[in-house]
Amino acid sequence: MTEPLRIGIAGLGTVGASVFGILADRGAEFADRLGRSMVVTSVCARDRSRDRGIDLSGAVWFDDPVALARSGDIDVFVELMGGEDGHAKLSVEAALRAGRHVVTANKALLATHGTALARLAEDHGVALNFEAAVAGVIPIVKTMRECLGANRIRHVYGIMNGTCNYILTEMEREKREFAAVLSDAQDLGYAEADPTFDVGGFDTAHKLAILTSLAFGTEVSFEDVYIEGIEKITQQDLNAAAELGFRIKLLGVALDTGNGIEQRVHPTMVPIDSPIADVDGVFNAVAISGDHMGDLMLEGRGAGAGPTASAVIADLFDVAAGHIVPAFGRPASKLAAYRQARMRAHEGGYYVALELYDRPGAVAAIAKRMAEQGISLESIIQKPRMLPHRQERVEKSDTMPVVLITHDTLEQAVREALDAIEVDGHISSSPRMIRIEKLQVGTGK
Amino acid sequence: MTEPLRIGIAGLGTVGASVFGILADRGAEFADRLGRSMVVTSVCARDRSRDRGIDLSGAVWFDDPVALARSGDIDVFVELMGGEDGHAKLSVEAALRAGRHVVTANKALLATHGTALARLAEDHGVALNFEAAVAGVIPIVKTMRECLGANRIRHVYGIMNGTCNYILTEMEREKREFAAVLSDAQDLGYAEADPTFDVGGFDTAHKLAILTSLAFGTEVSFEDVYIEGIEKITQQDLNAAAELGFRIKLLGVALDTGNGIEQRVHPTMVPIDSPIADVDGVFNAVAISGDHMGDLMLEGRGAGAGPTASAVIADLFDVAAGHIVPAFGRPASKLAAYRQARMRAHEGGYYVALELYDRPGAVAAIAKRMAEQGISLESIIQKPRMLPHRQERVEKSDTMPVVLITHDTLEQAVREALDAIEVDGHISSSPRMIRIEKLQVGTGK
Repeated sequence: MTEPLRIGIAGLGTVGASVFGILADRGAEFADRLGRSMVVTSVCARDRSRDRGIDLSGAVWFDDPVALARSGDIDVFVELMGGEDGHAKLSVEAALRAGRHVVTANKALLATHGTALARLAEDHGVALNFEAAVAGVIPIVKTMRECLGANRIRHVYGIMNGTCNYILTEMEREKREFAAVLSDAQDLGYAEADPTFDVGGFDTAHKLAILTSLAFGTEVSFEDVYIEGIEKITQQDLNAAAELGFRIKLLGVALDTGNGIEQRVHPTMVPIDSPIADVDGVFNAVAISGDHMGDLMLEGRGAGAGPTASAVIADLFDVAAGHIVPAFGRPASKLAAYRQARMRAHEGGYYVALELYDRPGAVAAIAKRMAEQGISLESIIQKPRMLPHRQERVEKSDTMPVVLITHDTLEQAVREALDAIEVDGHISSSPRMIRIEKLQVGTGK
Repeated sequence: MTEPLRIGIAGLGTVGASVFGILADRGAEFADRLGRSMVVTSVCARDRSRDRGIDLSGAVWFDDPVALARSGDIDVFVELMGGEDGHAKLSVEAALRAGRHVVTANKALLATHGTALARLAEDHGVALNFEAAVAGVIPIVKTMRECLGANRIRHVYGIMNGTCNYILTEMEREKREFAAVLSDAQDLGYAEADPTFDVGGFDTAHKLAILTSLAFGTEVSFEDVYIEGIEKITQQDLNAAAELGFRIKLLGVALDTGNGIEQRVHPTMVPIDSPIADVDGVFNAVAISGDHMGDLMLEGRGAGAGPTASAVIADLFDVAAGHIVPAFGRPASKLAAYRQARMRAHEGGYYVALELYDRPGAVAAIAKRMAEQGISLESIIQKPRMLPHRQERVEKSDTMPVVLITHDTLEQAVREALDAIEVDGHISSSPRMIRIEKLQVGTGK
C-alpha cells in the first residue's frame, strides 16, 4: 500500500467539519477502495474552542492558514474558508508554490483568479481541484473536464444558486412577494443576512465564469459576465409567465456565439414543460449541449454540508489516486484569451411589462415603437383580470399593466424600443424586461 | 510530448466509424488538450469493402479481431462489435492479457463477464473502460466510479433503453397500442427487427447489472436481475396511470435493502410530476441517491452514433492521460460477493388491473382476498367510462375492467392475493400488475 495521503484542512465550518467527520468515519472503507489511506494531519480555523462535533485531537492546529499550506506534513491543502482574496488566495498560492495539491470549494477565488492559479498549479505539477465550487454534488467540473472532450460545446446553462431558486419557487407556490419570501428564507438559514451576493446573481456569475472556461477552453473572465439578480421579480411577472406557459428561473448562460463568448446571469422565462423549469427549491441543475453529444442535464443538491463534502472528498480521491488533470481540462497555456460577444446582440424572445397610462393611443404608441425596431410581437396582454392581486390598485389608478411577448429579436432592438417608449411618456414607471429561453433538454421531441 | 496513443478499433458500424471520424477530424485539437496525440493504427470489421464515409487507408486492416487485440502496434483496443461472447469476449480477453487497455461499449459483455474481465485488467495493469456501455453520453460510469466515493449508495434507478422509452412515449401521446407503435419504431430504425432484447427488458438489465456493481461494490450479477418487459402494457394501463397521476416507464432499479441487493427491471408507474416521468422519447436518465450526497439525476441521449462515440472518446482521453481506474471503482479483489435480496419482499404500491365478471359479489370477493393478505387499498376504479377505447367491448361483454391501487405492501402479499383471486374465478384473464415507485429527485419539496 502506498504512503497515506496527508491532508490539511483550512476552514472548519459545516463543510470542513463534515469532510473531517466523513474521513474519520469511513477511512477504512476509503483505504480499501483506493489502496491508500487518507489522514487529516492538520487543521486551521478561526476559533479553536468551538465545538464542531468532531475529534480534532489527532490533528495539528494552525492559527495561520498560510503556515498550514506550507507545512511539510501535508500533501494536499483543502481550502474551505471562502472569499476571493485574503487568507484563501494567499494560502492557496502558498500551497501550490510549496508543491501541495489543492482542493477547494471556493468559487469566488476560482472565478477571479482561476487562470493564474491553474498556471501556478501546473508549474508545480500539482492538482487544483474544485468540484465543490460549482453546483454542490453535481459532478459538473469533472464531467466538463474529462467526459466531453470529443465535443465542441455550444452552450452551458444552469440553475446554480439554491437561495434564488428557493425564493422563486416559494414566490410562485405561495403567491408572495420577493421581500417577504427573502425574509423567511433568512429565518430558515437559506439566505444570508446580507443576501446581495446570492439574490443579486453574483454567486451564479462566479460559477458560470468557471463553467465557461471548462466549456470553451478560454481564460476565466468573471468581469465579463452580464449580471441581473432576482430582486425586481414580482407576482405580476410570475403570473404573466404562468399564463404564457413559462416559469421564471435565475439562469447562468454561456454560449459560444461564433463571434465571441456570451456569459449572462439573469431571471429567465423557461417553458413550463422543460426539465429546467421543474428544478425546484434548493436543487441545482446544469445543462450542456455539444455537437456529437447532444444535450445533457445534471441535477442535484447544490449546497449543504453533505453534498459539498461529498464533492470535496471526490476531489481528494482523485488526488490520492494520482489523477492530476489540468484545472480547466487543458493545459493553462492552451487556454484561449477570452473574447466577449456583445451582450446587446443576444437573440431570443423577450417579456416586457409596462405600467401604461390608460389613455387613447397609448397602446398604439407602444406597438409603433416596437415596429420601428423591427420587433414582431407574439402577444400583447392587456387585461387586469389576469393579475388579481393588482386589481385593487388598477381600479384606483390611471394606469394598467400591459405585457408584451416578442418573437426572437436582438436585445439591442428591445432596449432601443424601450428607451423610446420611456421618452414617449405613456408609462408611469420604467419597463421591466425578462429574457425568454426556449432551450430544451431531454424532451426527446 | 509523450508518444502517441495507438488505437485499434474492432467494429466499424455507425459508432466505430464515428469514433474513427472524430479522431481524424479533431486530432490536432485533442493533442493540444491532452499533450499527446491519438492515432488509429489498426481496424477490424466484417466487410472490408463497405463505404463508411471514412478514410481507412492509413490504418492496418485486420480480419480477425483477436489478432488485432494482440497486435504489437496498439496500446488500446476499442471493442465495438457487441455480443456477450464470441469475438467480443475472445478479443477483449486477448487484449487485456497482452497488456492492452480496453475501451468498450459492450454492456452484454460487461454484464455477463464483468467481474472476471475487471480482474484480468487489474492483473495486467491496464484500463477496462466502458462509459459508452451504459446510457450513452451520460457520464454515469465515471460519476459512480470516481465522484461519489464518500457516500453509501441507497439506490440507483433509470430509464436506460431508448427503444422502450420511445415506444411508451408514443403509446401515450398517440393513444396507440404497443404492436402498432413497435412496428413504426422498426420502420424508423428505433427498434430492431427482433425487438425482444430491447422491449423484453434485457438490455436495460445488462446496464443495470453494471450500475449495481458500481453502486454497491459487489460482483456483477446479471443473472439475479428480475426482468419484465413492456410488451403487455396497454392503453388501459396508460389511461389508468394518467388518471391516477402517474406515467409508465420501463425502469431498472437497484437497491441496497440492508439485507441483500435487489435488482429489477419492469414497467413502473412514476408520479407524473417527478423528473423521471418527463424523460421522453429516446432520452435516458439515471438517478442515484446516497447518504451525504442526497439525490442526483443525469439525463441525456442514451444511444446514437454521436453520443456513443463521445463516450468512447472520453474513455480514450482517460487512457491517453494515464488515468487508470479500477473497472468497478475499487479493486476487483475488494468487490463483495453479490447477495440477492428476495424480490418478492419488495415494498411499494401496486397497480392491479383485473377483467372482472359483472356479477354480484365479485368486487367484494376481490376486496376480501386483498384484505386477507393485509393489503390496504388506496383506490378502486370501476368505471368503464374512463376507458373509452374499451367501451364497445365492455358493452358487448359480461366483464368489466377494475383497477386497484394498493398502499405500500409486500410483493409477496400482492402475488398471493392475485393467485387466490385467479382461483376464485371472478376474472376472465390473468391479472396485470405494475409496480409503483414514488422515488423523487430534484423536486426540492
